[in-house]
Amino acid sequence: MKALGPIPSAFSADADGRLLIGGRTADHWTAEARGTPLFVYDRAMIVAQAERFRAAFPGEVALHYAVKANPFAPLLETMAELVDGFDVASAGELGKVAHLGRPVSFAGPGKRDFELEAAMRAGVTINLESEGEAERALAIAASEGLTARLAVRVNPPFGLKGSGQKMGGLASPFGVDHDRVPALIRRIVEAGADWQGLHIYAGSQALKSEALIDVQHETIGLAAAIAESAGLAPPNVNLGGGFGIPYFGKDEPLDVEAVGRALGRALADRPEILAGTQFAIELGRWLVGEAGVYLTRIVDRKVSRGRTFLVTDGGLQHQLAASGNFGQLLRRNYPVAIASRFAAGAEEEVTVAGCLCTPLDLLADEAMLPKAEVGDLVAVFCAGAYGLTASPTAFLSQPMAREILA
Amino acid sequence: MKALGPIPSAFSADADGRLLIGGRTADHWTAEARGTPLFVYDRAMIVAQAERFRAAFPGEVALHYAVKANPFAPLLETMAELVDGFDVASAGELGKVAHLGRPVSFAGPGKRDFELEAAMRAGVTINLESEGEAERALAIAASEGLTARLAVRVNPPFGLKGSGQKMGGLASPFGVDHDRVPALIRRIVEAGADWQGLHIYAGSQALKSEALIDVQHETIGLAAAIAESAGLAPPNVNLGGGFGIPYFGKDEPLDVEAVGRALGRALADRPEILAGTQFAIELGRWLVGEAGVYLTRIVDRKVSRGRTFLVTDGGLQHQLAASGNFGQLLRRNYPVAIASRFAAGAEEEVTVAGCLCTPLDLLADEAMLPKAEVGDLVAVFCAGAYGLTASPTAFLSQPMAREILA
Repeated sequence: MKALGPIPSAFSADADGRLLIGGRTADHWTAEARGTPLFVYDRAMIVAQAERFRAAFPGEVALHYAVKANPFAPLLETMAELVDGFDVASAGELGKVAHLGRPVSFAGPGKRDFELEAAMRAGVTINLESEGEAERALAIAASEGLTARLAVRVNPPFGLKGSGQKMGGLASPFGVDHDRVPALIRRIVEAGADWQGLHIYAGSQALKSEALIDVQHETIGLAAAIAESAGLAPPNVNLGGGFGIPYFGKDEPLDVEAVGRALGRALADRPEILAGTQFAIELGRWLVGEAGVYLTRIVDRKVSRGRTFLVTDGGLQHQLAASGNFGQLLRRNYPVAIASRFAAGAEEEVTVAGCLCTPLDLLADEAMLPKAEVGDLVAVFCAGAYGLTASPTAFLSQPMAREILA
Repeated sequence: MKALGPIPSAFSADADGRLLIGGRTADHWTAEARGTPLFVYDRAMIVAQAERFRAAFPGEVALHYAVKANPFAPLLETMAELVDGFDVASAGELGKVAHLGRPVSFAGPGKRDFELEAAMRAGVTINLESEGEAERALAIAASEGLTARLAVRVNPPFGLKGSGQKMGGLASPFGVDHDRVPALIRRIVEAGADWQGLHIYAGSQALKSEALIDVQHETIGLAAAIAESAGLAPPNVNLGGGFGIPYFGKDEPLDVEAVGRALGRALADRPEILAGTQFAIELGRWLVGEAGVYLTRIVDRKVSRGRTFLVTDGGLQHQLAASGNFGQLLRRNYPVAIASRFAAGAEEEVTVAGCLCTPLDLLADEAMLPKAEVGDLVAVFCAGAYGLTASPTAFLSQPMAREILA
């Protein structure tokens, strides 16, 4: 028997014990979408999460949404009402938010010339990842007669401890090593660019508030030191994100309120050179991850050598991370339930497999669940971020999953 | 410094030291496709591989292509001229080969009712994965007045040793445990289905000929034992595949000729009940894997904390396996080269990164390569199988890769 991850506490059952998502049953949503597999995103949970951020953090801290977490169009429209800006990682993502009337910034190594030009034409802030990218951006601005709104992404000398993906304190394709940043700021300002400030991202998927508090404190200190060295105050500092959500058995939720209180104190005490700086936090997974449920229907129930398998019409082609094949060293079970028997107790040990012809395609391995039959829906939770777009949807030419905003 | 995988020996350089694919330079193909990233599949290498199989194996052994390895339409058209049948894993794959005039068989857990019906209407052999699936197929055949061409996929009591993905000898979502197969054969024959035989697949990506020889020998023995127990001779036995290709530093190529010789002896000595049986081998990766090259252009060259990064316009969104994030416990480098300097010696240690904003997105880590600049093409080899369709192409809304059959 292997543990299942924790089901987000916002989900509950109706009087018949069926899982409710946005106040309706899973069957309601699969009927509405006319089939499975289906991602349902609970709008109210996303709104509540944004409100929780606003309550926890000083009003002067802007909230950005990292589009990479989930670029589903109706979800982006909702997000436009909740956040102060969008952070994109490609011209494709820019195209998905450009019409939504919010400020946009663009980070990511390997920005192509056409992407730099599209960003400048759209008035987007470009987070420069290297000196070479800066020169390409300046050359395009000059040749096209455009204003380059440029910020510098900093590769900090520290990382986010306990982070799922440490992105600072190391040699990195992301950003410019911190000690070279002042020279780059002076270069782009002298070249006539509109310098927008700094972007400092030290890691992701952290659940320890102390680690985030430490890294935000270090980030403010680093921003001030860079500003002093450059002799210029940054208009904006993007403090990164890195707020995690619990996926696995022993994960404890992040104490966001503690992070917000500490950031309030840190900003109150910030160095003078940052007095007029606008700070932003960029969140993706934390805003939308728990709001998503992946629903897939059981197609077969079979026994092999004493083990029971529930074979579904979904799988890693839509939920690569839940299968354990995306950035995990050891496979662990995501939170999973039988939707029609959400309130029932565990009755049997089963392995929930996807429909792909590969042993990698597991949605839950040796998990204790209520008894389920062919036709029942399996719900995989924590599917709102890095789900469909972070999965190999064309694998084995399976049908595309549907998506709906509940 | 970390080793690179072995570049397939069929690739060579022109007089200027540039990589040739199908007799033309990489630049030729990116111009023809009007951009990067680009998968180029060398048709002549695929033809040569099929001919190598035909020369190595007894003429009575049929060769099937496993469409899941690469379903690119022009490649499937080529394959139709080379193989005796297609094996598909979904109705979507069936739709890609149904017009090509070759026999088709369909394996895969989680076949939906609409897929079973589509397969029967197309005259496809369905490899049954469970007793439950058998009953669903029989019910659909009865209600729709269709003939069910059914084979039984067997979960064997042995696995393929040294296999990248062991698929036998274990509890499994694939196939029916071998000791229950005779009863299932009798059941479907009594129900009036057209019993087509057995499908026995014990693993994949094996490089040791001894392991494949052993497993084919065991498979023939198991097929005979099942046939004796059922009292019926199987018209067909699909022996599975599992032929691997070298991806990593110390991998040695499979001695296919040794496997073919041994299978010839095993078939000559086969039990009487299999005298009239047609045998097939199902190959995907081995036929097309080495023929594919993924070409991606260097967008940035940067140094961080003493390490040099080449940042490209491609990445794990097209080559998940090469990034080390698909079924690998430890990340190792695929074979990688600088296309314009294919004949040059290694000059510097670099890390080749993709353009995604995640540290997972590496195409080569700490590899020794000739010096390369922005604008040069990086070639990632062994990209012909489980490349584009096994990757999260929508991740970060990056442009889709192009594909071309050279």
